[in-house]
Amino acid sequence: MGAALLACDWGTTNLRAWTLDAGGGIVGDRDFPGLGVSQIGAGEAERRFREEVRPALGAEGLPAILCGMVGSNLGWREAPYVDAPAGPDDLARRLMAVEGADWVRIVPGVRFEGFNGRGDVMRGEETQAFGWLAADPARRQGRRVICHPGTHAKWMVLEEGRLVRFVTAMTGELFAVLKAHSVLKSDAPADDMDAFDEGCAAAGDGDALAARLFTARARVVGQGRPAESTPAYLSGLLIGAEVAALPRLLGCEGLAHVDLLGDPALCALYARALETRGVSSDLHDGEAAAVAGLFDLYRKARS
Amino acid sequence: MGAALLACDWGTTNLRAWTLDAGGGIVGDRDFPGLGVSQIGAGEAERRFREEVRPALGAEGLPAILCGMVGSNLGWREAPYVDAPAGPDDLARRLMAVEGADWVRIVPGVRFEGFNGRGDVMRGEETQAFGWLAADPARRQGRRVICHPGTHAKWMVLEEGRLVRFVTAMTGELFAVLKAHSVLKSDAPADDMDAFDEGCAAAGDGDALAARLFTARARVVGQGRPAESTPAYLSGLLIGAEVAALPRLLGCEGLAHVDLLGDPALCALYARALETRGVSSDLHDGEAAAVAGLFDLYRKARS
Repeated sequence: MGAALLACDWGTTNLRAWTLDAGGGIVGDRDFPGLGVSQIGAGEAERRFREEVRPALGAEGLPAILCGMVGSNLGWREAPYVDAPAGPDDLARRLMAVEGADWVRIVPGVRFEGFNGRGDVMRGEETQAFGWLAADPARRQGRRVICHPGTHAKWMVLEEGRLVRFVTAMTGELFAVLKAHSVLKSDAPADDMDAFDEGCAAAGDGDALAARLFTARARVVGQGRPAESTPAYLSGLLIGAEVAALPRLLGCEGLAHVDLLGDPALCALYARALETRGVSSDLHDGEAAAVAGLFDLYRKARS
Repeated sequence: MGAALLACDWGTTNLRAWTLDAGGGIVGDRDFPGLGVSQIGAGEAERRFREEVRPALGAEGLPAILCGMVGSNLGWREAPYVDAPAGPDDLARRLMAVEGADWVRIVPGVRFEGFNGRGDVMRGEETQAFGWLAADPARRQGRRVICHPGTHAKWMVLEEGRLVRFVTAMTGELFAVLKAHSVLKSDAPADDMDAFDEGCAAAGDGDALAARLFTARARVVGQGRPAESTPAYLSGLLIGAEVAALPRLLGCEGLAHVDLLGDPALCALYARALETRGVSSDLHDGEAAAVAGLFDLYRKARS
């Protein structure tokens, strides 16, 4: 079958695009790492999409659906948040049309009052979560807890196919800024799994993070551990603290199982940290979920 | 009286030096902001001390005592840590002599097994704490809890005049790297005290910091709070999380009073955060404590 839809997950640092056939199957795909919304100028999105993304995929004239930070004030056009609880039908009804002759729609983000009333927001992960639901009708029944790791990790509670609440943790960003700019900085790879496990164990109950972080320094200068093990220890400490603390904020204390959705390598680290706390997990590919979610929203909106 | 001693608190980003008379009174003082141990080359400390610090204070030929990161592997010469519990007599016995004709000594740092067995270290704050003790004999009785805010805040338990345990929190460094390099970055001043208090309240019990930090973003993009209030909110959140969590790690749960020692403006923020948790505090100037501590160690070592 030929391409019938251009689907994009357009984030802060990357744009990933697929052409899909009329059944949702992938015809082609491309990454545009220089087109993240933080990397292009204000007002540039429409032109770059028309002049670079469409031609690269042979997708001139196709209807298009886009999720992610492209719908923020840094992106193409701001798509107002839909308030949680929300299901895919709510999103499909609130797709934001952007200018132009073609059918081009941006998926709105989701806003939640937050675990402490101070608010929480997401743009893009909701589309992956709903795509994950769409891929298997059984997932739309009962309660599911999804963790989507990343720069800003999202923990989502889905009930009967709707996103009812979520919490964001800046774990990936903390790792990046501490590794690049703090006394813990290091160019060593974070692949020492013994140090990762040591960091996980040092995470405690996810409390007192500023103090636990300093143990990454003290174990080197006070106890002679190799400085090259610091990035893996730091990774284990931050992920360990997140998986220890987040279920409680989500109202899911005593959680026994989490579905991990996103980058496979990062999900594997989360699975390892969860296992040390007796929480089982299944890993699901974020890209397949994004494609399924974009296609599902497109179908709902066009039907 | 004329100058009888050159005393220095030589840290990572600054060197502060005083000439003291035979009774410990300050004769002269100077800051050398370009001489922090992170700013000078390896092996340069001795020459810069001789050619810049001594002449600037007219202190050629005086005995000298130095505390802080100058005694680390980044400084002049590494002064091995003294293990806690330790008192000023232990430090005075372990002063590190450095090369040269004059009496020049570096105060060792203190090492502790840490709240979770992964170690903790300090260099400089112990001298201030012992100086604070030396300034009033009553402080050497019973248990005292001192908090020294800063890039790496130190919480110290002193019992009968000895430092028995301590915990370090990277609060100041987290504030600096997040304010400069993360999605929370901002050039606005952190002086909005309503936002500071809001951040304090959002700190909860000092758990789940990576999630609480994201509320600093969500309150702006999801709830329309002014972006200029982010630094003060972030400051309140980080300091609030520290004061909520650290007493427990120190084995001082239910702590009613803390002595704050250090920079007056920063100590005032800690006092504000502590007050919201029902903890009283007194503020003490860190500079006076450093001078008293260096002079006390000098006297003990020379007597």
